Amino acid sequence: MSKFIKQEVQEIAISGIRQFNQKAEDVEGVIKLTLGELDFNTFDHIKEGVSWAAEHNKTRYTPNAGLDALRKKISYRYEHYNAEEVIVTVGTTEGISIIVKSCIGKGDEVIIPTPGYVGYEPLIKIEQATVREIDLSTSDFRITKEQLETAYNENTKAILITNPNNPTGKVLTMTEMDYIKDFVLKYDLLLIVDEVYSEIVFDGTFTSFSVYSELKDNMVLLDGFSKSHAMTGFRIGYIVADILMIRQLLKTHQYSVTSATSLSQYAALAAKDEDSLFLVQELRKRRDFLCQELDRLGLAYVYPEGAFYVFVNIAEYSSSSIAFCERLLYTYKVATIPGESFLGHHNDYIRISYALPLEELAEAMKRIESFLKEKR
Amino acid sequence: MSKFIKQEVQEIAISGIRQFNQKAEDVEGVIKLTLGELDFNTFDHIKEGVSWAAEHNKTRYTPNAGLDALRKKISYRYEHYNAEEVIVTVGTTEGISIIVKSCIGKGDEVIIPTPGYVGYEPLIKIEQATVREIDLSTSDFRITKEQLETAYNENTKAILITNPNNPTGKVLTMTEMDYIKDFVLKYDLLLIVDEVYSEIVFDGTFTSFSVYSELKDNMVLLDGFSKSHAMTGFRIGYIVADILMIRQLLKTHQYSVTSATSLSQYAALAAKDEDSLFLVQELRKRRDFLCQELDRLGLAYVYPEGAFYVFVNIAEYSSSSIAFCERLLYTYKVATIPGESFLGHHNDYIRISYALPLEELAEAMKRIESFLKEKR
Repeated sequence: MSKFIKQEVQEIAISGIRQFNQKAEDVEGVIKLTLGELDFNTFDHIKEGVSWAAEHNKTRYTPNAGLDALRKKISYRYEHYNAEEVIVTVGTTEGISIIVKSCIGKGDEVIIPTPGYVGYEPLIKIEQATVREIDLSTSDFRITKEQLETAYNENTKAILITNPNNPTGKVLTMTEMDYIKDFVLKYDLLLIVDEVYSEIVFDGTFTSFSVYSELKDNMVLLDGFSKSHAMTGFRIGYIVADILMIRQLLKTHQYSVTSATSLSQYAALAAKDEDSLFLVQELRKRRDFLCQELDRLGLAYVYPEGAFYVFVNIAEYSSSSIAFCERLLYTYKVATIPGESFLGHHNDYIRISYALPLEELAEAMKRIESFLKEKR
Repeated sequence: MSKFIKQEVQEIAISGIRQFNQKAEDVEGVIKLTLGELDFNTFDHIKEGVSWAAEHNKTRYTPNAGLDALRKKISYRYEHYNAEEVIVTVGTTEGISIIVKSCIGKGDEVIIPTPGYVGYEPLIKIEQATVREIDLSTSDFRITKEQLETAYNENTKAILITNPNNPTGKVLTMTEMDYIKDFVLKYDLLLIVDEVYSEIVFDGTFTSFSVYSELKDNMVLLDGFSKSHAMTGFRIGYIVADILMIRQLLKTHQYSVTSATSLSQYAALAAKDEDSLFLVQELRKRRDFLCQELDRLGLAYVYPEGAFYVFVNIAEYSSSSIAFCERLLYTYKVATIPGESFLGHHNDYIRISYALPLEELAEAMKRIESFLKEKR
């Protein structure tokens, strides 16, 4: 039956993250620090928005690009863009998918700094294009001009940046952003920016790439409601780009999904800016607690400035992040993700998600402490 | 900005259906017989299902392939398939999109009988593959063995069948289905069957291609809740196929959208088989009324056995379906879709949708009558 499936699709492996999640499912009493989904329930005013919309029969097709009111609301976040320059997507995932499908072709190269999210490479490989990695673990998880120049060649079509980053939680400095902007303009590349964690930043304010008006002809920007408003299941993300780009992407979007779910769009309309402030407040406490604990245990880690992950160095304890995570899972019942599973395959690291209440994090850290003692 | 967009995507034109819909929007007092969406509100028990799910925080990611209970419910419709052989998709549109993306590559040909739905060809062209049309208007809108054989060549990878058909409302006979089955097995092709109108059939019972167990290794089947349960805005469709195919499609699905909306899946769980019985009862009255009126006006048409469209021959009145529809729209304020806009470009026809109450259909037919008198 697979005879009908293209080689490129057959070659996609099931992600290591999914595999580890699955293993964790089968361990009784496990604490799952594997999740990319917050433990908070969706806010009541959002759920009421859904019920209201259902009662009022807002259950028909919306315009392909999304409800006008929602596009307008989203555009208010971006100084240089208006409502017509927004497409509401089925989560940020659909956004990435249609951008790659529309812009990346056979033989193209896409530069991605690593460690990075696992969802990009399969989409790029399906187009018979390749990922050119920039390994940030060699530069203190900051991007340099030299790294960008080295990564470039004549096949380079685009650069894909996740800011804040998953799995490290790093937020780009203005200097790094300037480097990237200059690099993109120098070689006339497409800059794809995934800012899905933009509203979860702990120190200072977040600067979106959208502030560079000079990038408008070279950039597509992605964000969504999943992480910032605990709305993962609603599947609402969005693309922001120049109108000429939007018109093209709208065709791919329309033929790929028609539109995002109507009720979910009304839910997003009911979401408030304050929602994420509450989340950030709670997540900061967890971040601070985890860093304190990691310091106490003498584990090195990438200091997380946003998102809800911490990337922890376990080289001292194991030469294999997979073996480390498996032993931690089966013996001490704490599930984490091996660095090996992310783009870049950073085998010296594991990712700990703090999408769980403090008490559970505390219990997990106790178990990790016992595990490390055994390992020493 | 479009410089980053692939040639294949740039070449996709905005569909004529959409263009006509847009024109109709601007005409005051228009009756829109253009719609692919029923006028019925979503049933109360479905809307209550959504509110219940929201209240109970069913707002997180579901499994990528969909809720187990929903996959099971869907699988009960198909004798030879179980719950693991179902993927819940973002409408039937996403289903078609990921099947084409996963299976159709550069140089492949996909056979599609016409007149046909407009959403398929753009997806096929993005993959640099082509559509090989079989013109059914030359064979009384029935498919023959000879037509299938003539359409075949060594590049043929798949055949795509919509049953019941849009825009004609024709339902395949068992003889036609046998022809297609034999053809697919003879050349070992992939059969893609879009049965999204399966529950809207007026005469006799509908037979799904899934009854042929011998096709299991060569078939992917699509259906959804949009048309049968007046749930267009929920974006819930599904793919049914052999487990080996499903495992591959699940990868493309996962990286394209993650999963369908959680609340929409709970809504689909709350949908009842009786829902479509009610719709069919109402739609049959409209179908009968329209056919009676068309007979009275002496207009020839393809007798509709399912879906909610009638394909009407206007050759006697105009040599251009677009000119005919424009004049009807602007002078008599009735919006219909030119046959020219569908796959196959049947310029002698227009499509009338009866997704409107009887009274409005009656008024529209009066206006059409006046228009025809003017034309004579």
